[in-house]
Parts: sequence; structure tokens; C-alpha cells
Amino acid sequence: MLEHGGRLLRAARRYGIPASDWLDLSTGINPETWPVPDIPARAWHRLPEDDDGLAEIAADYYAAPRVLPVAGSQAAIQALPELRSRSRVGVLAPGYAEHAHAWRRAGHAVETLSADELLAQRARFDVVVLIHPNNPGGDRFEREALLALHEELQARGGWLLIDEAFMDATPERSLCGETGREGLIVLRSAGKFFGLAGARAGFVCAAPDLLAALRDRLGPWTLTGPARHVLRHALADRDWQRRMRAQLLAQGERLAALLSVHGLAPTGGSAFFQWRRDPRAAQWHEALARRAILTRLFDEPASLRFGLPGDEDEWRRLDLALAGIALNESSETQR
Amino acid sequence: MLEHGGRLLRAARRYGIPASDWLDLSTGINPETWPVPDIPARAWHRLPEDDDGLAEIAADYYAAPRVLPVAGSQAAIQALPELRSRSRVGVLAPGYAEHAHAWRRAGHAVETLSADELLAQRARFDVVVLIHPNNPGGDRFEREALLALHEELQARGGWLLIDEAFMDATPERSLCGETGREGLIVLRSAGKFFGLAGARAGFVCAAPDLLAALRDRLGPWTLTGPARHVLRHALADRDWQRRMRAQLLAQGERLAALLSVHGLAPTGGSAFFQWRRDPRAAQWHEALARRAILTRLFDEPASLRFGLPGDEDEWRRLDLALAGIALNESSETQR
Repeated sequence: MLEHGGRLLRAARRYGIPASDWLDLSTGINPETWPVPDIPARAWHRLPEDDDGLAEIAADYYAAPRVLPVAGSQAAIQALPELRSRSRVGVLAPGYAEHAHAWRRAGHAVETLSADELLAQRARFDVVVLIHPNNPGGDRFEREALLALHEELQARGGWLLIDEAFMDATPERSLCGETGREGLIVLRSAGKFFGLAGARAGFVCAAPDLLAALRDRLGPWTLTGPARHVLRHALADRDWQRRMRAQLLAQGERLAALLSVHGLAPTGGSAFFQWRRDPRAAQWHEALARRAILTRLFDEPASLRFGLPGDEDEWRRLDLALAGIALNESSETQR
Repeated sequence: MLEHGGRLLRAARRYGIPASDWLDLSTGINPETWPVPDIPARAWHRLPEDDDGLAEIAADYYAAPRVLPVAGSQAAIQALPELRSRSRVGVLAPGYAEHAHAWRRAGHAVETLSADELLAQRARFDVVVLIHPNNPGGDRFEREALLALHEELQARGGWLLIDEAFMDATPERSLCGETGREGLIVLRSAGKFFGLAGARAGFVCAAPDLLAALRDRLGPWTLTGPARHVLRHALADRDWQRRMRAQLLAQGERLAALLSVHGLAPTGGSAFFQWRRDPRAAQWHEALARRAILTRLFDEPASLRFGLPGDEDEWRRLDLALAGIALNESSETQR
């Protein structure tokens, strides 16, 4: 198992602070959850049915020709490498580590490279995996560059796989609309934007043959009935989506500004999180944890990711904590 | 994709009868759902955490030394074959078809045999897959025979895999308590007994090394937050479980008696369903469907599975429909 954010219960035990006292900034999940309605009993009771309209509503929201609902984009990340014979795979790094892990496990020859290296050395790969915007680095790619990259890969039977888990605040940059093209696969996640990480719901946009193969690989009933019910409504709630896009873009900027004030200007980020490479990332992480603020620490490169605080109290709490740590820096690091 | 019960929306379209008008007896799911409470918002919002106590509560309910929660026993059925190098696998048939499908897909040499054949020819296999009680046939196995079979398989590095999805009404027959033994794997399902098929929750009881390998194979966050919340409470609700065991056993008998009255004496069954081999199974299925009663039709062997009606109205409706079909038998089959 790789290490991930969101391990609040473990942090609570480690630091001896009850889970309910923490401010959890360790994930890139929107702190405002789409308002989940009551779940009809039949959604719990019956086997989920894949012809309930969710795929069509998702195709509409993602503006994609065809969409396969999956149990979180994680499920697709794990299954897609098993649909190809042994390939040379270039994966963006640092990035969401499950991609490289899944391709390696399926027996492919995997290299992890920076965005610049990956694009420059594209000729060496059958499959290129990008995260856009990248997590945690926030790297962005131009539409025309991506389509050209796809064309080159596709010409030799390759794939361009783009993980757009954090794309919802900037839909104009999405390539979902282009996924009628063979070999162009885009992953989307309902967890981040809709704040529904517990629902384990994601979507794959790709050409029909590939979606059929993936569906067969994943087997029946991959999404729960309650998740399908919630998603059918959340993906159709255009008013909430419009408001949330603006709100997240503003909060991403606010977080970058707050961190900068405290000497932690972000190296990169997105509407959902900010990321800072810092040789003292581990000390910052530890000092914040002692104040019951959980961030996500990366060892390689040494860096820290901050998710968005929710309400004004949480913004204030982060502000005060960062100020306190800056003031007591020398004593903190000696503890 | 294999064919399954529970395809109510498809039947509604095919027969031009609204989904809400159907009596769905096409699955083996308890018609009485464990009463699901309100789901806390954080269960939807946060990434599920695997140290939330669910595994311990499940180990208690299943009386197993160690349990891994999975996204329905289906998830384990698909993943377990990938944890072994190419093996000779004997699978009980007719039975839940996903077992043989999954072992074949993972490249194993699979044979499907009747219970008697399977036990008699055990020496030819590395892995034996049983469904206990069997679905749809209802076959039952003696505890000592199963433990002897396991010992023989284990002596040559093999596995005995028992799918106990329909075992909850007869826990005294379960082998969960023996799964500390290497190579003995028992699958349980929360969907059938608790009537929570939409939650996609199942449990694997096995030795620690195997559970660790399976967990790694399945990846993070396989169960949803809401499902984990519901299951933590349902698996601990001993009063409901006690009442439901008695109720299901009684209803299984009642269904067998009702079918017998109408000339459809079951070939086999369990507390959750009754099954009848019948050369006219397709005609019975069709005639019931025209009356908006959905059963599960099997082609090979020609047979029909009936799940349990829920309330007295549903029992009466099935009774009347069967009586009507028997009366108009000749005209029905000509339509």
C-alpha cells in the first residue's frame, strides 16, 4: 500500500489528539460537500443497475461523448494497465503515485519523469500518463500540445492517459470532449470537486471499445446504489457547480496568499490545494500536527501539500498556527 | 459481462411495465433491509479509513480470527485468482458463475463439476471453489468433509475457497472460525442477509498473509464511507440478526411449500431462495414476467430461481400468479 492523505484516525492516535479536534488539510478534497439528500431505501437494498441514467448525466457534465462510471478514478488507475500488453510507460512525477505503482504491478516498463522530460522524450514511450492539473505540483499543459502528443502516441498504437481529478474548477482546460479519439483516455473524480471522497465515484472518458473492455475488466456493480443516486443529482446540479467553481478558484488563490504571508510561498498548486517544496517540510508538518492541523508530507521531493480550510474559523486557525510556528521556529524544531 | 438477477429496469422496458409495478424475485436478497440510519455527512465527505473498527466488528460477527472488508464478495472473487500462479481449479457448477469466469480470466485451468464429482476428483485440483449453501442449487456440505478437503489441498499448497454468501441464516455451518488455517478462504456477503446489496460490501476471512496480499491487490478505499458506517452498525445489531435468522428460515420453507402447491416443488434452495430445474423454465419465467413478477431464469440447466416475497401482499400476488398460469397453461405458452 502506498501512503496517502486523509489518514486522520492514525494521526489522532499518534499525536494523542481526538479526531474531532483536527483541522484536516491533508487531502485536496473540496471542504464543502455537495448537499447530500436522503437516500431512498431501494438504493441500499437493490443491486445497482448500470442503466439508471448515471452514465448519460455524467457524459453531459463532463461534455464527453461517452463515460463509464467507476468506483473512484482509483479503480480505473488500477485496471487500465491490465488492458495492454507490456508497454513502455512514462508517468509524470512527482504526481499521484498510484499511477506508476499500477503500471509497474501489471508488468510494464515504467519510468517517472518531470513534465518537461516526459514531453521531450515522448518518442520512447507507448503510453504517457499525465495528471492535469498535476497533484501535488500543479503542472498545467496546453490543449494543442496534449492533442499533438496524443496523435503521436496513437499513431503507434499508444495511449495518452490524463488524470483530470482536479480539473472541475477549470473545465475549459479538460480534454474530455476529445475522448472520441482512440487512445485518448481521461479520468475524472467526483470526490474532489463535489467533496464526496467517501462515495468512491469516478468516471472514465474514452472511446467505446476501450470503455467496454474496462467495464468487463472491472466486473459488475462497481458503484454502490447510494453513490449512484447521489451522483445522478450532484452531476446535474448546475447552479451549485457554477458557484463552486468560482468559490474554489478564489479559495485556491487565498490559500496561496496566506502561505506566502508566512514565508511558505507555494511552488505550485491548483484551486484545490497548494504545494510547497521545502527542505524543512517535515518540521512544518510536525509543528502543524502538534497544533492538530494535518497536512500531507511528501519525502521525495521534501514538500508539503495544504488543502483548503472550510469556514472562516478554519482559515483563522491555519493563519494563527503558521504565525505561531514562525515565531517559535527554533524551539519547535528542537523538541 | 455475465448475466445476473436484479436487472429490473431492463425487464421493465422489455415488458412495457413500469419498474415500480414489479415484484422482483430475481435475486436471493433478503426483502427486509436492515434499517439504515441517517448517514453522517463526514462519511460522504472524507476518504474512507480502514482503521475505523469495521474489520473488528466483522470479525466478531463472523466469528473469524481475521476479516478483510471488500467492495462486495464480487471484488474478492475477481481478485483472488490473481494471487496464484497458474493452477488447476475445480469450481462447483451450476453455481454463481462469476467464480469460474474470474479464474479463467486470470489464466488458470478451470473445470466446472457437480458437488459429487468435485469431491470425488479432488486429487486433480490445486484449488477447489465451493458455494455453500450453493446458489442456485442449495447444495450443502458437512463440516468434517470440508476440513478434510482443505487439509488435502493445503498439503500441496492449494486453497479451499468457500463462498458463504447465503450462510447467515445458518451460521453454525460456517467455516469462518477455521480460517486461521493457511489456504482456507471464506467469502461472506452483507448484501443478502442484511438486504444491503446496493452497499457493495463483503468480507474475506483467511490467514493474515493472504489477507495482506489481497488488500494490496485491491488497493485503497475499496468500500465507501457510507457503506462502512452502515455495516459497522448492522453487523453489531444482534437483536435484528437473531430475529432475521428465524424469519428467513421460516420464509424459505414457506416459499418451498408455495411452489410445491403449484406443481413447482423445488429441486433445491436455501433460506434466501428456492430453485427448480424444469424443462419449461423459460415458459414459466415469461408467463410470470407478463404478470410483472421477475424471476431468475437459467439456461443451463433449464431452471428458475425464486427469491422471497416481502410482505403478505407480495406472497398473495405470487400465489395468484402461479395459480393463474397453471390454469391457463396451454394458452400462455402459445402467445
